[in-house]
Amino acid sequence: MSHLNAEIIAIGDEMISGARIDTNTAWLSRRLAELGVDVHYHSTVGDTLSHNTDAFRIAVRRADIVVATGGLGPTRDDLTREAIAEALGRPLQLDEASLKHIESMFSKRGRDMPERNRCQAMFPIGATPIVNPQGTAPGVEVAATRADGTESHIFALPGVPDEMKTMFDNSVAPAILSLNHGGRHIRHSVMKFFGIGESDMEERLGDMIDRARQPRVGITVSSATISLRISAMADSVDECEKMIASTRQEILERVGDLYFGDGEGFEQHDAVEAMLREQERRLVVIELGYAAPLGDWFAALGDSPVLAGGLSLVGSDDLLRFAGQGVTAQSVETSGADNRQSECFKVVRERFNADWILMVDGYPDLNAPMNGVMPAAPVTFTVCDPQGNVSSTDSRLGGHPSIVHPRIAKSALMFLRAQLKEFAA
Amino acid sequence: MSHLNAEIIAIGDEMISGARIDTNTAWLSRRLAELGVDVHYHSTVGDTLSHNTDAFRIAVRRADIVVATGGLGPTRDDLTREAIAEALGRPLQLDEASLKHIESMFSKRGRDMPERNRCQAMFPIGATPIVNPQGTAPGVEVAATRADGTESHIFALPGVPDEMKTMFDNSVAPAILSLNHGGRHIRHSVMKFFGIGESDMEERLGDMIDRARQPRVGITVSSATISLRISAMADSVDECEKMIASTRQEILERVGDLYFGDGEGFEQHDAVEAMLREQERRLVVIELGYAAPLGDWFAALGDSPVLAGGLSLVGSDDLLRFAGQGVTAQSVETSGADNRQSECFKVVRERFNADWILMVDGYPDLNAPMNGVMPAAPVTFTVCDPQGNVSSTDSRLGGHPSIVHPRIAKSALMFLRAQLKEFAA
Repeated sequence: MSHLNAEIIAIGDEMISGARIDTNTAWLSRRLAELGVDVHYHSTVGDTLSHNTDAFRIAVRRADIVVATGGLGPTRDDLTREAIAEALGRPLQLDEASLKHIESMFSKRGRDMPERNRCQAMFPIGATPIVNPQGTAPGVEVAATRADGTESHIFALPGVPDEMKTMFDNSVAPAILSLNHGGRHIRHSVMKFFGIGESDMEERLGDMIDRARQPRVGITVSSATISLRISAMADSVDECEKMIASTRQEILERVGDLYFGDGEGFEQHDAVEAMLREQERRLVVIELGYAAPLGDWFAALGDSPVLAGGLSLVGSDDLLRFAGQGVTAQSVETSGADNRQSECFKVVRERFNADWILMVDGYPDLNAPMNGVMPAAPVTFTVCDPQGNVSSTDSRLGGHPSIVHPRIAKSALMFLRAQLKEFAA
Repeated sequence: MSHLNAEIIAIGDEMISGARIDTNTAWLSRRLAELGVDVHYHSTVGDTLSHNTDAFRIAVRRADIVVATGGLGPTRDDLTREAIAEALGRPLQLDEASLKHIESMFSKRGRDMPERNRCQAMFPIGATPIVNPQGTAPGVEVAATRADGTESHIFALPGVPDEMKTMFDNSVAPAILSLNHGGRHIRHSVMKFFGIGESDMEERLGDMIDRARQPRVGITVSSATISLRISAMADSVDECEKMIASTRQEILERVGDLYFGDGEGFEQHDAVEAMLREQERRLVVIELGYAAPLGDWFAALGDSPVLAGGLSLVGSDDLLRFAGQGVTAQSVETSGADNRQSECFKVVRERFNADWILMVDGYPDLNAPMNGVMPAAPVTFTVCDPQGNVSSTDSRLGGHPSIVHPRIAKSALMFLRAQLKEFAA
């Protein structure tokens, strides 16, 4: 079968009015690409029947695969079933099995099914329900035959992201895989990197990110952290795994210096936590200036025995004051700046019962971007190890305001990881 | 002129591939609604000429106003000008004035214009350039006459959000306003609220959020903070201001108890900072548990004299330890828990040179949602005022994982605001 293309339709007044940002469509685009499907169009319509019907008519004409999200609820605003019926000229009819499933979802919660939920068991003639293990609304799968005899396959899913994603991975992906590559398997692996920009990463990876490569390697960037998602398609799961292993090796040869771990949600602070556990040492972070993201990130790791806490202060004078070292001309004379910092760190380690300290001095003010970009500002990362040895590095970081603070925090973590590694060696 | 409708087209491989989430379209949807224009369709296409041409053809047929973003750069991937020319059957020609503008943008930076930027001065016959004060790419405005004699107006803007927004507000909005309401003015005002959900807010506002109301009142919600954007359209600016003032009054009568300030970017921590400045008092925040967002939010306000710092710790035992109060059976016996907390707060106020303390105990673990929703978890907010008086309140908060921690932090700020207000009275 030749290469398939797709259109994604998002349905809902909250999207067309701009009240909610649609993230389902981007997620579906990435998943479809992994299945070897080219996404050509995204469309969004509100809860208006004629606009929905129009969108489905156009999509069926120009796309082999149509994935729609939203409009499957039980209210009068939910028009996806009707719109598909109208666009394909196939009236709705009741599916008994789906009705039973919906009734059982309600009885599990000790309730009778309201009459209006009955409409969720209505399907265009020839359609198949898509099982929704997490909610009442089943999805709709239906194939339309076009004038030239080819088919367009519609998959309509709920708009709730968790339900949509589960149903796509469980039911839609296998169906598309068998349409596109009859009976083959697909497996994924995600590697995480930090330390360069996206275009430098692309350059170093070279032909590895070619869309036609097998396994396919997709890049996504989130707040300066780069994810490489490897998608292998083969006749057996074993073969997929082998392909992934050799691609991982190749990636590590090219950009292994920037690699810090595996998995979509794995971040540098997770890597730091794992290293600290290994060493059985506790960390406190000190953040000065106009942000304190590390305190928040480490807190999110929870009651780990290696997280001693976070301290956020405006500037280094406040830190001296905090540590009981008044800032007087005399004190500066009698002991050097380095000495006073060591004293400070000693106090902080005691109070937080910590071994390691990471200090960021400091996050810049984001209120004065020039043409939408923050000029690079000086920042110093300082690490104090369990023996009281202090290392620090100066850096200049800027960029789009939304990215500057996380980039600084992540650069600090990269510096800390290097010190943790060296200390363990 | 009758009610106009619109379609928004987003252009770019990074969007169609799902690598980037498009936020321009939602912003444009809200702006167009304020201008009294109904948005019916959003479309997204990659950097493929035939898909672009197809999207413009369909849009011109079904929408009175077409706003496109992206594809106006100088590279071969930038196809918007060509796609419009193709869709309307109007060849591109050079616009000398635009060429001069682009050359001058380069000479300001001390550079010659590269030859490839010349294409940015090419426009379909009959089109008008839209001035781009922040970048080299001018926008394209062109009207297409449809088979039935009516017109569709295309406005093509760059994809860079800052440039796009400036150009929309400076040039496109006035053009649409004169198409839709010949020569009228429009003015806006944004009010911020916290403390109830969106649907309760809608219920309390009643007919005020009717789409046909003048001035129009639009609701948006971001991490549990509600914004009401009032848009008044009238024959003079004065009249707009009068309409806004009376609508503000009406809103305050209905939901004034939840109001905390004005302006798109104004948040509760800004309101707290202003109250502290008024009182000339300094605040420290203590955050326990699985997050520490307040430390980060307050840090972002910068070197304000009223911000004393933030402290993030795992649990209340760590706080006792931090304050030098060992957790022994004896210590609990000899002094009550309240007493020990007061002692703790005294130490914290001294070390941070602070007057007020806000403590959140504690942010819940987000790793165990049930069906995508966090069950409500108990959380205690404690405020210590400059005289050492301690008030606290218990609450149970849950919801979608992405919203739970900010909602807790914001509820804590609401409690603090009440204490600050009472103390000042």
